[in-house]
Amino acid sequence: MRFTIKREEFLKGLNIAVRAVSSKTPISVLANIRMDLTEDGLFIIGSNFDLTIRTYIPYKDESNSDIIRNYKEGSTLLNAKIISEIVRKMESDEITIEIIDSTIATVTDDKSEYKLNCVRAEEYPEIDLDASNGVVFSLPVAQFSSLVDQTAFAASTKEQRPILTALNLEASEGMLTAIATDSARLAKKQIPISSNLNFIANIPAKMVVEVEHLAEGASDIAISISDKKALFTFSNTTVVTRLIAGEFPNTSKVIPHETNYSLEVNASDLIRSIDRANILSIDRENVVDLSMSVDRVEVSAKSSQVGSAVEKISPFRFEGQNLQISFNSEFVVAAVKALGSEDVTFMFVGEMRPFVIKNNKDDSVVQVVTPVRTF
Amino acid sequence: MRFTIKREEFLKGLNIAVRAVSSKTPISVLANIRMDLTEDGLFIIGSNFDLTIRTYIPYKDESNSDIIRNYKEGSTLLNAKIISEIVRKMESDEITIEIIDSTIATVTDDKSEYKLNCVRAEEYPEIDLDASNGVVFSLPVAQFSSLVDQTAFAASTKEQRPILTALNLEASEGMLTAIATDSARLAKKQIPISSNLNFIANIPAKMVVEVEHLAEGASDIAISISDKKALFTFSNTTVVTRLIAGEFPNTSKVIPHETNYSLEVNASDLIRSIDRANILSIDRENVVDLSMSVDRVEVSAKSSQVGSAVEKISPFRFEGQNLQISFNSEFVVAAVKALGSEDVTFMFVGEMRPFVIKNNKDDSVVQVVTPVRTF
Repeated sequence: MRFTIKREEFLKGLNIAVRAVSSKTPISVLANIRMDLTEDGLFIIGSNFDLTIRTYIPYKDESNSDIIRNYKEGSTLLNAKIISEIVRKMESDEITIEIIDSTIATVTDDKSEYKLNCVRAEEYPEIDLDASNGVVFSLPVAQFSSLVDQTAFAASTKEQRPILTALNLEASEGMLTAIATDSARLAKKQIPISSNLNFIANIPAKMVVEVEHLAEGASDIAISISDKKALFTFSNTTVVTRLIAGEFPNTSKVIPHETNYSLEVNASDLIRSIDRANILSIDRENVVDLSMSVDRVEVSAKSSQVGSAVEKISPFRFEGQNLQISFNSEFVVAAVKALGSEDVTFMFVGEMRPFVIKNNKDDSVVQVVTPVRTF
Repeated sequence: MRFTIKREEFLKGLNIAVRAVSSKTPISVLANIRMDLTEDGLFIIGSNFDLTIRTYIPYKDESNSDIIRNYKEGSTLLNAKIISEIVRKMESDEITIEIIDSTIATVTDDKSEYKLNCVRAEEYPEIDLDASNGVVFSLPVAQFSSLVDQTAFAASTKEQRPILTALNLEASEGMLTAIATDSARLAKKQIPISSNLNFIANIPAKMVVEVEHLAEGASDIAISISDKKALFTFSNTTVVTRLIAGEFPNTSKVIPHETNYSLEVNASDLIRSIDRANILSIDRENVVDLSMSVDRVEVSAKSSQVGSAVEKISPFRFEGQNLQISFNSEFVVAAVKALGSEDVTFMFVGEMRPFVIKNNKDDSVVQVVTPVRTF
């Protein structure tokens, strides 16, 4: 294998593939990226088994200028961290890579000459990147993005119950529903979808977030869901992730439908007040109180050692009896931010019952937070 | 004590004083800042015993508008981290502080009401901030800055030999000399000074760097050196630091005066080449080789596992026989950067002897690095 390649394009490709490579992989061959120079262009693959990213760089750009020239097809494995760092720090417009005896890769430009030990491509595990044997559909990236942004943060990051680290995606009756919950909060978003699609898939939430980052700037994303894996394709990149086995908890009863209290406030006002009061949430980390009556809404927190905070929320619209609720401030702030609207509405059933946070103008998304018991 | 103060000015003062407060202080009262509202203005003190910072905020600004109004003199101690964070996050232009029964401080604006447990000022240790009983002189801040920037980085950060964590300042015969060394490298800078000044002081290098940061934007800095402490005054702020006891090593023989080889190169070219080659400095962390002859200068590094790097340096001017030297790349890069010049000159005695890095156009500063033995 040999090729001369525009440094910037090469670096862009490396940066994408390398995101799947874990520095502490137990399978040492996966510390490498795989490069295949075929008649279609240069394919670069990075993987940690759970997540695989393949991207490709064509021979010519849109204006038909060479990106890759002076080449001979072939394949190799190169240490992902080292090759990325070298290419990032080199200074020329073009870099030449050449494999000698399948054991040494030279990486050169006018000033620099690197000789890297490389591994034969055959050592790399087989990874199935075939999108054809699943349910296949496509979404505008902006829509995919809002689906992920408004839900994935609510997934658990703890591995005790792996199913809760998933984003639960369900297509049925013309609706795609995404749900994430860590059992103390829940986020749900629905978007319309072709009515002949039917599937349920539990995709690791952090992988979906990774896909969202990578797809930034693309226009559409093609998604293929099969029994064991989900596959995402956009621009020149394909990402495949395993699914999480097991059944996602039935959350239909978690979202209260009849509520007794409602509070409408300005979102950024509320976030700033919670953020300040939270300075005093020392004894019980991140727990703040929200007390409401028709003429006064306050966020407060207290530490026996340090002192207390009271924040007036104004203006507001409150309906119902007096009510005081304690909650994890991070959960409420994340939920309010995820709604992405200027005003938010809280709907409460009672002191110790999960409450809803939503945007009155957008029924597609709902956030639920369980209060914290403070006595 | 009671006062209403412009939030921005208050925050600026707090941010200065708080830099001396350590979060892991063994003396719990020093987790507080001390505030004294006197007839001159509001004094704020933060300390970790080794370093004390006092700053003050006057009642009126330069255009004679109120910074502090509606006040009653007094003193108190308040948790440094908490009060800073509250004031930083509050939103009004003005904040009111009031001490009730010397045990509670209220911090309020239109929206927020904080009640903080506070401590009586008498609990704070006595700290001597008197500048009058030492050798006193003054420098433009720009000059003080270059003195610190070009030397302090070379001090040791390890506590095994405390004297090496100092910046050694010596005034004699009309010259102020600053030297720092961690025993593997040395940096020395001289600036002319009034000829009647005579002193030697070993000031903790990281404290001098802290003073330099704080003095940014001021025009002059007054320095007072006495037996046990150094005191720096600029703008509305005074910083006092203990000195390090013991004798600074005699470094006069470390700097070679007759050399056999000289190499002149472009500074940023060299830094980038070292930075790249360093990617391969894996077996012996950060060690790179510099090989020189009249027609070729190269920086290189090698790892038995990963591979090798060779960087051509060009253009260059070399005088002498062929020479190869191995060094700690971080030390050389830091020394070259500290010179702050476009071209730098290396002067070598031989393979295993300390070498000089300097700027041919500026004799006031010299950097010395000891090579690394590679066989």
